[in-house]
Amino acid sequence: MSPFVINTRVYFEDTDAGGIVYYVNYLKFMERARTEYLRALGFEQKRMFEDNLMFVVHSLNARYHSPARLDDLLRLELRVNRTARSYLLFEQRVLNQDSGDLLCLAEVKVACLRADGMKPCAIPESMRTALADGASAP
Amino acid sequence: MSPFVINTRVYFEDTDAGGIVYYVNYLKFMERARTEYLRALGFEQKRMFEDNLMFVVHSLNARYHSPARLDDLLRLELRVNRTARSYLLFEQRVLNQDSGDLLCLAEVKVACLRADGMKPCAIPESMRTALADGASAP
Amino acid sequence: MSPFVINTRVYFEDTDAGGIVYYVNYLKFMERARTEYLRALGFEQKRMFEDNLMFVVHSLNARYHSPARLDDLLRLELRVNRTARSYLLFEQRVLNQDSGDLLCLAEVKVACLRADGMKPCAIPESMRTALADGASAP
Amino acid sequence: MSPFVINTRVYFEDTDAGGIVYYVNYLKFMERARTEYLRALGFEQKRMFEDNLMFVVHSLNARYHSPARLDDLLRLELRVNRTARSYLLFEQRVLNQDSGDLLCLAEVKVACLRADGMKPCAIPESMRTALADGASAP
Repeated sequence: MSPFVINTRVYFEDTDAGGIVYYVNYLKFMERARTEYLRALGFEQKRMFEDNLMFVVHSLNARYHSPARLDDLLRLELRVNRTARSYLLFEQRVLNQDSGDLLCLAEVKVACLRADGMKPCAIPESMRTALADGASAP
Repeated sequence: MSPFVINTRVYFEDTDAGGIVYYVNYLKFMERARTEYLRALGFEQKRMFEDNLMFVVHSLNARYHSPARLDDLLRLELRVNRTARSYLLFEQRVLNQDSGDLLCLAEVKVACLRADGMKPCAIPESMRTALADGASAP
Repeated sequence: MSPFVINTRVYFEDTDAGGIVYYVNYLKFMERARTEYLRALGFEQKRMFEDNLMFVVHSLNARYHSPARLDDLLRLELRVNRTARSYLLFEQRVLNQDSGDLLCLAEVKVACLRADGMKPCAIPESMRTALADGASAP
Repeated sequence: MSPFVINTRVYFEDTDAGGIVYYVNYLKFMERARTEYLRALGFEQKRMFEDNLMFVVHSLNARYHSPARLDDLLRLELRVNRTARSYLLFEQRVLNQDSGDLLCLAEVKVACLRADGMKPCAIPESMRTALADGASAP
């Protein structure tokens, strides 16, 4: 199954004195992809807050392959590898859109919590159904 | 004359514990708009570096009118108010794309420098011509 | 009267591909100074939230004089130029601690708001008294 | 052997609309600790650049245990778990300084590269010796 894809551009704000994208910023890009994926499924995070729910990153591992640079157009790919009762497991890639080179690969486990108290809770049934049906790129 | 316009979305990375966009991040958004404006004119900043040129912000003033929030779609408007020999004066607005509310208004003076030594230098003639002809939104 | 002073170090996260501190990050540094100044006066922002108050930046102007670079130790100076009923006017400087060079100078107007509704409100009397008495560096 | 330790404070810039520290910012904090550790050993990153060397993050895994909030004082602990020919393996913890609660735990593999060309190279002998001797907190 093909991944969910969005593009993002590298600006000065994303780079560091090494002349490349600062390593933590790939994780910002990956959250943009997760946010747009959920939005494409009909779930804005703002509305989740109103329902007293929030997603937080539980754990992640990331492997940096090649650096991105100023003005590069990036391709953010996302797959949901697992939909559990109270968490989602994402596989995410950042590639250079033009060369196709893989820049960063990560697995990110995102937990669903009650916003008050921050205790784990079940992902709403409507979202689990939407996730099962998958989403195509916007 | 109508402004140059791009849109940008508010993600978690842009917000703070006040529940609104962190005030310095509007200035990041404004730089995205300047970068896309120059790109639309044919001037990528990466290539400017190769020509030993860089733009740096010389000074700015900003007035915050209303806050942006998570998931808001922002409208970034840009006008070049002055093209001088070695600097550009931008007028930039951040608005809520849906409501049209003005969120932040700024004047930003950007100087052209030699990358080695960081001394002011003249904006290249080709860029001055392109700026005079203006640019339409991408 | 001598300014309130704290130091902060330049890390990779603060720099950009130009090899210098990214221009918006000086404004982050300045907020660190304001936060530590208020803390030195006995006012943590966390507790202000509990009292339904928050400070937000109303407007600012900044002038960039000289760039900071990786590993530089910065000296953040702060003066309160005006204490009005519902806002504070800060004059803030960022200097290189070692050379004494002025890097960035800004005036920042910070408004006191009710956290719910974000309407202007009076700065609490206890804070106004503390501000009038001034604060020494931590 | 006791870890290398520095403290850092949580400012507005570090938080997000969830009211907690934005998850990628723990990785910024961890880099501050690595930078200060190398500085305590006598190795400023700026000088490494002059020697045509740079450290880049090769891979990492992180586990988020409990959130940090505005105004929290954090305790950053660092251990070098392995010193290989061309990389270092760091174990890093972020704790709440007051409660002692563990907030985030990560393993970060940092590779030594030639700055031009970004190819792996050996960590300088002087640094390997210093790392073997360890460092005490500043």
